[in-house]
Amino acid sequence: MPAAVAGPEIEKLIQLLARLPGLGPRSARRAALFLIKKREQVMTPLTTALQTALEKIVVCKICGNIDTQDPCTVCTDTRRDQSILVVVADVADLWALERAHAVNGRYHVLGGTLSPLDGVGPQDLSIEALVKRAHEPEVKEVILALNATVDGQTTAHYITELLTDANVKVTRLAHGVPVGGELDYLDEGTLSAAMKQRTLF
Amino acid sequence: MPAAVAGPEIEKLIQLLARLPGLGPRSARRAALFLIKKREQVMTPLTTALQTALEKIVVCKICGNIDTQDPCTVCTDTRRDQSILVVVADVADLWALERAHAVNGRYHVLGGTLSPLDGVGPQDLSIEALVKRAHEPEVKEVILALNATVDGQTTAHYITELLTDANVKVTRLAHGVPVGGELDYLDEGTLSAAMKQRTLF
Repeated sequence: MPAAVAGPEIEKLIQLLARLPGLGPRSARRAALFLIKKREQVMTPLTTALQTALEKIVVCKICGNIDTQDPCTVCTDTRRDQSILVVVADVADLWALERAHAVNGRYHVLGGTLSPLDGVGPQDLSIEALVKRAHEPEVKEVILALNATVDGQTTAHYITELLTDANVKVTRLAHGVPVGGELDYLDEGTLSAAMKQRTLF
Repeated sequence: MPAAVAGPEIEKLIQLLARLPGLGPRSARRAALFLIKKREQVMTPLTTALQTALEKIVVCKICGNIDTQDPCTVCTDTRRDQSILVVVADVADLWALERAHAVNGRYHVLGGTLSPLDGVGPQDLSIEALVKRAHEPEVKEVILALNATVDGQTTAHYITELLTDANVKVTRLAHGVPVGGELDYLDEGTLSAAMKQRTLF
């Protein structure tokens, strides 16, 4: 009802904020009021940042990463190990691995995982480009850093089969106890995987 | 770490999104990626909506409401009962009362509540203007729609004393069982207030 109280412009702003993941209609209203109150400190800079992002952000034609340059910073970084190709479902996963400094290779963003139930087939993902990249002579290992879910693992199996004739080692992330995790709270699948893949202390 | 992966522009956008209430650093990252993916559907319209809001939104000089016109839509609405003045702490409370169609009067936004611990005194709130408005001949009732917290009630008492020589009835919201509320979960203060103020069925 703020439409009648505060004008359609504010109502429109609230509706758009409510579309952001993590914000519902109530918190979008709170966010809009916060923005209006923090006009100079937050609202103006956020508007400018969005405009800049709109103008500059591009998708890397090589790996599918999001950046302000194409090819992206990762693909053009010559200090990265060119023999390692890390396959991720989403840009968010790429960022997560980079934050963890988990690997110093290059990436390939699939744009999702195979999901027959949701109608996502191989043609909807960047799989053809991945196979082509895996055949490049410098690539020696393809790491499938996909979610340990049914869809993620289906996608991993599908890609592994496609890469049998490429001259690369195909690997996947280890299963095990999360760092800081308590055994008591872990599911049996993780526990038995962690036991099977136990390492020397 | 996305700075190194995705450019300072995206990092800046994430930082600003993280300042919104309800969004932390993690959800701000998710929101930024969502915006970039939904460029046409969400990011562009949101940027435009923010720009429009920045250009048009003003604070009503009479009541303190936020609107695209000054005096605001509520203050200029002649169908509203000019004898009723509803005092609220914040614009969010004004919006909440309007959504509930709780009252058809005019409002006065204090801009907060008295809070000695946080250093908020009477001079920090729009109290002088309220006293002036309460003395206008058409105003017959001042409804203190303030939070039922210590600060809210302190503010209500303070205002009530200031209005003793104004020719107005000063009222406050009723205490009681929330609609849909279960007695079992209510605190004793609310329960005894609801019992004292019981009405005929």
